[in-house]
Amino acid sequence: MRVAVLGARGKVGTTMCDAVRAADDLTLSAEVDAGDALSLLTGSDTEVVIDFTHPDVVMDNLKFLIDNGIHAVVGTTGFTDERLDTVRSWLADHPESAVLIAPNFAIGAVLSMHFAQKAAPYFESVEVIELHHPHKADAPSGTATRTARLIAEARKGLPPNPDATSTGLDGARGADVDGVPVHSIRLTGLVAHQEVLFGTLGETLTIRHDSLDRTSFVPGVLLAVRQIANRPGLTIGIEPLLDL
Amino acid sequence: MRVAVLGARGKVGTTMCDAVRAADDLTLSAEVDAGDALSLLTGSDTEVVIDFTHPDVVMDNLKFLIDNGIHAVVGTTGFTDERLDTVRSWLADHPESAVLIAPNFAIGAVLSMHFAQKAAPYFESVEVIELHHPHKADAPSGTATRTARLIAEARKGLPPNPDATSTGLDGARGADVDGVPVHSIRLTGLVAHQEVLFGTLGETLTIRHDSLDRTSFVPGVLLAVRQIANRPGLTIGIEPLLDL
Amino acid sequence: MRVAVLGARGKVGTTMCDAVRAADDLTLSAEVDAGDALSLLTGSDTEVVIDFTHPDVVMDNLKFLIDNGIHAVVGTTGFTDERLDTVRSWLADHPESAVLIAPNFAIGAVLSMHFAQKAAPYFESVEVIELHHPHKADAPSGTATRTARLIAEARKGLPPNPDATSTGLDGARGADVDGVPVHSIRLTGLVAHQEVLFGTLGETLTIRHDSLDRTSFVPGVLLAVRQIANRPGLTIGIEPLLDL
Amino acid sequence: MRVAVLGARGKVGTTMCDAVRAADDLTLSAEVDAGDALSLLTGSDTEVVIDFTHPDVVMDNLKFLIDNGIHAVVGTTGFTDERLDTVRSWLADHPESAVLIAPNFAIGAVLSMHFAQKAAPYFESVEVIELHHPHKADAPSGTATRTARLIAEARKGLPPNPDATSTGLDGARGADVDGVPVHSIRLTGLVAHQEVLFGTLGETLTIRHDSLDRTSFVPGVLLAVRQIANRPGLTIGIEPLLDL
Repeated sequence: MRVAVLGARGKVGTTMCDAVRAADDLTLSAEVDAGDALSLLTGSDTEVVIDFTHPDVVMDNLKFLIDNGIHAVVGTTGFTDERLDTVRSWLADHPESAVLIAPNFAIGAVLSMHFAQKAAPYFESVEVIELHHPHKADAPSGTATRTARLIAEARKGLPPNPDATSTGLDGARGADVDGVPVHSIRLTGLVAHQEVLFGTLGETLTIRHDSLDRTSFVPGVLLAVRQIANRPGLTIGIEPLLDL
Repeated sequence: MRVAVLGARGKVGTTMCDAVRAADDLTLSAEVDAGDALSLLTGSDTEVVIDFTHPDVVMDNLKFLIDNGIHAVVGTTGFTDERLDTVRSWLADHPESAVLIAPNFAIGAVLSMHFAQKAAPYFESVEVIELHHPHKADAPSGTATRTARLIAEARKGLPPNPDATSTGLDGARGADVDGVPVHSIRLTGLVAHQEVLFGTLGETLTIRHDSLDRTSFVPGVLLAVRQIANRPGLTIGIEPLLDL
Repeated sequence: MRVAVLGARGKVGTTMCDAVRAADDLTLSAEVDAGDALSLLTGSDTEVVIDFTHPDVVMDNLKFLIDNGIHAVVGTTGFTDERLDTVRSWLADHPESAVLIAPNFAIGAVLSMHFAQKAAPYFESVEVIELHHPHKADAPSGTATRTARLIAEARKGLPPNPDATSTGLDGARGADVDGVPVHSIRLTGLVAHQEVLFGTLGETLTIRHDSLDRTSFVPGVLLAVRQIANRPGLTIGIEPLLDL
Repeated sequence: MRVAVLGARGKVGTTMCDAVRAADDLTLSAEVDAGDALSLLTGSDTEVVIDFTHPDVVMDNLKFLIDNGIHAVVGTTGFTDERLDTVRSWLADHPESAVLIAPNFAIGAVLSMHFAQKAAPYFESVEVIELHHPHKADAPSGTATRTARLIAEARKGLPPNPDATSTGLDGARGADVDGVPVHSIRLTGLVAHQEVLFGTLGETLTIRHDSLDRTSFVPGVLLAVRQIANRPGLTIGIEPLLDL
């Protein structure tokens, strides 16, 4: 399969070029970045493009790719509902084209969110702990907030977490995200980690995800590249590619 | 719902009697143990029986229950394929009766095995660590062996765990169960714990189950009691009751 | 060594009687509870008494024991500075008597607090996570608060934890105990657990203590019983008995 | 303090140059590598040298440094007892010079080994789990073997780990290092991690060290640089610099 990278000279793009080169079943057909003509893609018989560029240019990229029947695996951010609708309308005119847009390609992160949702209805208690390096600006992390919301939705109608806390210090019991306590740890030396803890009578279940390195998106992008030809139209996230 | 316990004076049976009494939607209709007549069950309008008895008597119990249209949730051990076939043939004559037989009612254990299977194809590496009190006779535990086998099956056709170990001590890399390394820890103070570790480029996923107390079977038994009327015929394990 | 238990019919006392009986080098000389005469202790040639009674009676017990040259290992609570001074004054008159009073006999808990203090000056970041059953009234736990204070003291003069959090939810970053963030998890199925996380450039150190069972005080009490004869006067806590 | 780096263009050396530059209280006085004259060190009024070079040249470096009254913090490997004796004899002639040679500068690793030794006599059971990337050639790791040996020594005279294992698979119970079971996990995505698990009645203590990044040696080297002037003669390891 002939695969090109858009945003090839960025940090993520460079890593993706290396990963495509290293894969036996893939050929790196073009490396394209700002200033290069998109015609490099058609000229190189590219079948799939990996796009890690910028919200300012990604829509133009997608228009070109869809028009030319090149499939796109997109990690660029900034997709509003309106943008997604535009992509869908372009794809309606080119039913052979396929686009996959994912906010997170780390398979472990996606699986741990999925498992947390599935487990949620069967436990009395659930809490989320997320642990990151101390340079992070938001607490809780976006992933932890999303995880807590998915869990809360899966527990709709069930009693809240039992909690007899009557005296204590502000903040000890964490932030409340739709009824799920979320705790944020910031520690030099850490990268990005998350634990979902479930408890019921006599047993607990813990689902932990550790991102130890910025390359954790690679296997998810390659999975999408290999499957996208079989998924015409728009796919959101890599979860639909997994057999869950 | 009127629920009776067979084996009511055993350790597990006593716990189950307490649990039924404590549940708002269930009534404890009878407590039956060795020496008591099974007619106590029919006489008390019992709808569901929880059976934690003994391999020697469980088949007679099931015959009686199926014949009398009483559903059975069974934690008693010793069910061979032959025994299961016999139960199925009895149920064929009483299509309104339902029997659920499970080797493990701990929801956390069942979920962690299920999640491990689902995650298995998406990671390069997987290992299992099980940790128990030091009075345990077998290593690895039965649950760890079963978990490793399910993982191995889910990875059929994929490359083996990468492992560059060239020098070392016997046993360091654990026991090999169908290609999955399994490590057994025995420590005073522990109860029953298991960790499945998955790894791929830059990230790991850990699924950990802790059984801290012998009551961990209770929520799974109650789940089965509440759903069994909707599942005529024979059900094996509680996994089919979970929305996974 | 002849050892008696005061408060012998309470939950803890019963466990201690069993533990003394099970120890090859100890003899259970008397089991004394409310209503029994303290002369049972002198009459039975008791050398060491284990006192798990009540703040209302423990001072009378200690007076009797000190006067009679019987050593005391005390887990009863309620010792104010004033009470400790009184015990010291009684011991001044009986320099051969020994009393050890400890708020916590769990060796693992004591060690983990000690190690946390020792490690504290060498890491940029430190946070405490404590995890308990949901029936607990206070958050953070007393042990977590004490641990955080000891850590804060050991880091006096060092820069605070780095933390770039600028947006977030109330409580996400935990409770602030003298500059150390403390997070309290409440989960059905848990008993009593605590993790101290330290981080510096490229590495983290985690000290975790799990209390899985109410018997965790036993080894510490037996350690104190065996060593008390060598420690005349008043000893506070079991830390001085450990070779640290 | 004026600090130079020997081996300044190697991977570790480059990191150390950056670290010295970033430290407010240190000045990078010289960057020296193969081909450069050692007189760059004396010419730049260097007070302390950090040596991450090669066993072939480190002895010549040390001779020069000791002769010139420059203190040395050495991470280069290959120090036999004979070499250490030679260094000691050189220092005997220059009592004002100080040399610190350490096999491991990661403070977390050193602390966790120290704590494991201290805790060892107080628990019935102890096991070591080490977890590394799958490119590692040896299992168990050198650190795990050393940790297990130190633990075994600290438990000399105590009963062995209780273990009722009577049936099982080869390797399940790990490698035996002086009576301490050691388990080696190899997982894509991991870096270098180690857990020491202690257990006694009703409680466990876990000391975990995670090396997430190759920079973990930096804080230990800087600690040694800042203290070495107060420690004339030869110091082995950074443990003596820590207040433990």
